[in-house]
Amino acid sequence: MKIKVLTIFPEMLKPMLETSILKRAIEQGIIEVELIDIRPYSTLKHKNTDDYPFGGGPGMVMLAQPIVDAVEANTGEEFHGKRLYLSPRGRTFDQKMAEELSKDDELLLLCGHYEGVDQRAIDLVIDEEVSIGDFVLTGGELGALVIIDAVSRLIPGVLGSDESSEDESFSSGLLEYPQYTRPRKFRGLAVPDVLLSGDHAKINRWRRDRAIEITYQRRPEMLKNVEFDKKDKAFFKSLKESMAEDK
Amino acid sequence: MKIKVLTIFPEMLKPMLETSILKRAIEQGIIEVELIDIRPYSTLKHKNTDDYPFGGGPGMVMLAQPIVDAVEANTGEEFHGKRLYLSPRGRTFDQKMAEELSKDDELLLLCGHYEGVDQRAIDLVIDEEVSIGDFVLTGGELGALVIIDAVSRLIPGVLGSDESSEDESFSSGLLEYPQYTRPRKFRGLAVPDVLLSGDHAKINRWRRDRAIEITYQRRPEMLKNVEFDKKDKAFFKSLKESMAEDK
Repeated sequence: MKIKVLTIFPEMLKPMLETSILKRAIEQGIIEVELIDIRPYSTLKHKNTDDYPFGGGPGMVMLAQPIVDAVEANTGEEFHGKRLYLSPRGRTFDQKMAEELSKDDELLLLCGHYEGVDQRAIDLVIDEEVSIGDFVLTGGELGALVIIDAVSRLIPGVLGSDESSEDESFSSGLLEYPQYTRPRKFRGLAVPDVLLSGDHAKINRWRRDRAIEITYQRRPEMLKNVEFDKKDKAFFKSLKESMAEDK
Repeated sequence: MKIKVLTIFPEMLKPMLETSILKRAIEQGIIEVELIDIRPYSTLKHKNTDDYPFGGGPGMVMLAQPIVDAVEANTGEEFHGKRLYLSPRGRTFDQKMAEELSKDDELLLLCGHYEGVDQRAIDLVIDEEVSIGDFVLTGGELGALVIIDAVSRLIPGVLGSDESSEDESFSSGLLEYPQYTRPRKFRGLAVPDVLLSGDHAKINRWRRDRAIEITYQRRPEMLKNVEFDKKDKAFFKSLKESMAEDK
């Protein structure tokens, strides 16, 4: 998968691509991330990339010309991926969208700054606006990194065989069960006995119950999309009863 | 504001803090970000920070000991901030939470990796789990940067007087209106006349209408929390009527 990132701060993104799982995926040639500086595409004498907003108001707006030219120069006829603009106005990015994007061979991410980009750049060269959440950031670079990270790790080969992207929050539709590792006792707190039992059916049941419990406590709306089998239903019924008693 | 970030990849975070608005805020002493490497706190011979999960399953789990010791060593009695753990299981971070956190003097962010951290570390030294969205990332570092960015820019003095954090998505409760800058015509697309009119009441009305329109089209659920005045109501009525006709 080839990912192109258009930004006025390419140096900001590099170190993230040189660490951990992304580094390995890039070295193995599974993904390729190209950081494209928007500034050289500006036709203005001083290579400006922003100007005051028409109609007044605080801040600066990124010029359409350098962006449109940069996108066009980097997406020829052979480009078949999505061209996304990171923006608080966009569709909220989630695991399902990450899964969709991970099936494409190409992806272009445009990072804005200041008060955003000239609307005409969006109209001309952007397929969709995407937001990573209901908060305002200084620029789109962090959003681009979030998308690159979430998407890359779903591409076969990026995670090792000892890692897994299936048994995770949002894949099962449930939040994750608690994890424990050595030692068995730490500061007086013991690992739950069941995890030391070696009984895998029991361990799986305990983990599933905890995942249902945590999801019900923290994000009950997520349970609507989870299919419960008979044992899940029995546990969920007892859970709701015990929580009602607690109140 | 003093922000402490606990991570096994401190070098991954540095460049983000050396760019743009965050760099300026740090240089001016408005915020201070301390990157704390968890690894040296490990009491194991090889300074390991993870081990296999009890009960089996893929991946590694971060050890409680180095985390608990690192948190304790960096949060003495004088520490009064929140201790947050970045986790897909956490409360979803949003602009309101950013506003709350921006009022505190201190903040600690714990970044996990792999299959998460030993539950006992969370039980012992974490106040709350926070998630930046419904997607799975390789580690908590990007989430920490998102929180630092969103929170910092709300601290008075971080944004210049020509920038503004008030007139933005999620502050007004509406998504942002479109922005335009020079030139007046680009690739045949003209800036809307009203923005060139110099009539500020008209411009404000146009921007407010566009913000209502975009929010209604993309995130209608957000409108529940927005107070409409008489003019807003009139526009919204005509908007709904014209959209119904389009169908």
